[in-house]
Amino acid sequence: MTPALPRDLSCPRIATRKNGGLELSRIVAGMWRMADWDMTVEQRIAFIEQCIALGVTSFDHADIYGNYGVEGLFGEALRASPSLRDRMQLISKCGIKLLSNKRPQHTIQHYDTSAAHIIASAEESLRQLHTDRLDLLLIHRPDPLMDFDEIADAFSRLKQDGKVLHFGVSNFSRHQFEALNRRIELSTNQVEFSPLHVAPMFDETFDGLQDKGVAPMIWSPLAGGRLFTSNDANAENLRLVIKDIADRLHQPFASVVFAWIMQLPSRPIPLTGSGRIEAISVAVAGTTFQLSRADWFTILRAARGHEVA
Amino acid sequence: MTPALPRDLSCPRIATRKNGGLELSRIVAGMWRMADWDMTVEQRIAFIEQCIALGVTSFDHADIYGNYGVEGLFGEALRASPSLRDRMQLISKCGIKLLSNKRPQHTIQHYDTSAAHIIASAEESLRQLHTDRLDLLLIHRPDPLMDFDEIADAFSRLKQDGKVLHFGVSNFSRHQFEALNRRIELSTNQVEFSPLHVAPMFDETFDGLQDKGVAPMIWSPLAGGRLFTSNDANAENLRLVIKDIADRLHQPFASVVFAWIMQLPSRPIPLTGSGRIEAISVAVAGTTFQLSRADWFTILRAARGHEVA
Amino acid sequence: MTPALPRDLSCPRIATRKNGGLELSRIVAGMWRMADWDMTVEQRIAFIEQCIALGVTSFDHADIYGNYGVEGLFGEALRASPSLRDRMQLISKCGIKLLSNKRPQHTIQHYDTSAAHIIASAEESLRQLHTDRLDLLLIHRPDPLMDFDEIADAFSRLKQDGKVLHFGVSNFSRHQFEALNRRIELSTNQVEFSPLHVAPMFDETFDGLQDKGVAPMIWSPLAGGRLFTSNDANAENLRLVIKDIADRLHQPFASVVFAWIMQLPSRPIPLTGSGRIEAISVAVAGTTFQLSRADWFTILRAARGHEVA
Repeated sequence: MTPALPRDLSCPRIATRKNGGLELSRIVAGMWRMADWDMTVEQRIAFIEQCIALGVTSFDHADIYGNYGVEGLFGEALRASPSLRDRMQLISKCGIKLLSNKRPQHTIQHYDTSAAHIIASAEESLRQLHTDRLDLLLIHRPDPLMDFDEIADAFSRLKQDGKVLHFGVSNFSRHQFEALNRRIELSTNQVEFSPLHVAPMFDETFDGLQDKGVAPMIWSPLAGGRLFTSNDANAENLRLVIKDIADRLHQPFASVVFAWIMQLPSRPIPLTGSGRIEAISVAVAGTTFQLSRADWFTILRAARGHEVA
Repeated sequence: MTPALPRDLSCPRIATRKNGGLELSRIVAGMWRMADWDMTVEQRIAFIEQCIALGVTSFDHADIYGNYGVEGLFGEALRASPSLRDRMQLISKCGIKLLSNKRPQHTIQHYDTSAAHIIASAEESLRQLHTDRLDLLLIHRPDPLMDFDEIADAFSRLKQDGKVLHFGVSNFSRHQFEALNRRIELSTNQVEFSPLHVAPMFDETFDGLQDKGVAPMIWSPLAGGRLFTSNDANAENLRLVIKDIADRLHQPFASVVFAWIMQLPSRPIPLTGSGRIEAISVAVAGTTFQLSRADWFTILRAARGHEVA
Repeated sequence: MTPALPRDLSCPRIATRKNGGLELSRIVAGMWRMADWDMTVEQRIAFIEQCIALGVTSFDHADIYGNYGVEGLFGEALRASPSLRDRMQLISKCGIKLLSNKRPQHTIQHYDTSAAHIIASAEESLRQLHTDRLDLLLIHRPDPLMDFDEIADAFSRLKQDGKVLHFGVSNFSRHQFEALNRRIELSTNQVEFSPLHVAPMFDETFDGLQDKGVAPMIWSPLAGGRLFTSNDANAENLRLVIKDIADRLHQPFASVVFAWIMQLPSRPIPLTGSGRIEAISVAVAGTTFQLSRADWFTILRAARGHEVA
């Protein structure tokens, strides 16, 4: 019953800053759950090749994903197939210290945005990913102890050493983004957004990024699957509304969600979370059409449970 | 029992931007409900003449008022009495698409801030109002899909063509106002405010406008009549407090409310909502006196139900 | 059981603006409750001498403290021992009008940030404190009627006349601080903060001040004693957590709280509230050590009742 995807599907590219700088694929492949996919090295290489063939050339990591394990799994693929590296953009994050058997010295889950930790974490990401550079490094969470000057200084040193080419943040409020962006050019703010989590559209996050010409990256664009499974009355109604529009447009359900997100003027760059190339293709299909304003607001109304004023 | 108004009542004028630009009357006549006033063309002309004689020369419209009908009613008066136009300032708004028998193509109430819609809506306002220019055009509501650059571009084209002289917004938060104001000079942000709705005084709205030297316009300064009628205990107490002050000052109740609002350092410009010239005179009378700080805070305390800290 | 303090305890100094300007002691002696201390003039002089000997040279006042009485008590000491003045920094505040037998003309508690009141209040503070200058004058609370230009103008005149050397605000939100700071250089924003009141760390207050390089002053760093006495389950757990860390570090409980606060990158300057030199010494001891990030976040987790994300 799911509509067939176009055969020649090809993900476009996007400059994260309107006036140049880092270019990513319009859909970014999130590696968050890679440790759960139970892939052999060969399967990982094949999956990465399929993503790249689809135009999805940007891969999103964090030091902590998969209990500090995902970067290493991905790096094994890059080591086994070195030509992949120059055909992709690698994104990672730092700044959270997890309780983990891999980090026995951590006695409590906390943040560390000291220059020493940022640089050590980025260097460890390079080792794990088996590469000499990250295309983009993000501070994972705003840290009450973060010193804007110190972070900017750490970023500058990583850039000078050629270890990281671009910088950004994740889960920052607008004013935190701007305080750091005044000290060093930031390429994105990666935040949670979906029809079930619309806050960044109404607080200052998206408006602030649009104002600066900086594209947000979006994690959990499908609300971690809750869009498909939640029994909440509001979510169930939202599901019916999206399904109606998808059926009328002959598009897959998730493609409509990705299109709805990407239609925002801040130019959001959604992440996928799946290890199935079909799921990633459905996201890419969301780049091939636009919703009418009436359809777009029909989804917003269902998402919020009320009309606009 | 209502105190007599001064015979020589004359509404002063105000520059919406401290350093020049658009000049409005200190009290603006809101036409929102004109369709309910059941006036003949002659009565409309007479009412407009009375307003102007009182110094209330600015008239507030929106494309959607009266089910897309008010501008046309007002325009009939301007057509029948063409000399009125040059003695007044015309304000209108765009950006909301209502469900309406006049707009059968609208399938859901939504916003449209595309350049095409802004320009088409402004041009339709000119036709309806039977004029060649608007003095001020506002975006009616902040739109999640608004592209600041595109709106600024549409405004610039309308200005270049002489169709609209000044621009602004309505119901925008401070950061949205500033994002657009960075792209094109805005003359106002028209927001809801009254002793029963004091939010703009405590969020960043009024402080932000004062900071930029831009005067807000105020809709529903009398809380849509609830100041007179609400049975809510807080509103009833507020009514008694305002009445005591009004009696002591020998001023009409509503004049005290208008004076209380206009005393704010952001220089708010209140709208009236009535078709009775007496009601508009009472608003104008609020420009003739100031409250003591003690009286001003007595009303604030009653409005909030607690003392300042 | 309380650990002994170092014998050579000496409070360091801090520039409230990163690039110079006003210098205060890292711990400021709050005089808020001085009227309750029942000290003779000789005792007041002795207490002030002890503070200065400890390096605590900055004394925080407000016109209204002790029912408009504290400045006068402190001024008696300065008159009796004139050499004290040049060895200290005097801070005061204005802008609140209290109901008081000392101010029979006040009919309601309210704010007054008119230039006339600011200047008159500062001049009265000089008379009461028996001095010719204040080192720092703060607007006590944000006033809905405050006119940023008028306040800046009043400050400029006080500075020109040599009556006040530096200016700041208290209890201002970030955007209010910045609006006034754009008109005249502000040296601080004195706000409430403690492990039981962490709001300024998560709203824009501290981030905004860090961004500008301006140090906040902190009132009620021990939550007005509730850190020691509250029976609230969350506060009781927080107390245990702080006590564990204090015991392990061989530091007094309150020293750990002061250290926890001062570790923030905005460089907060805490006030004391006690008339006992021992209590002030414990605050100063908080300048002699740093918490590990793990300990710092352990206190934050207990303060909020949940882990960081």
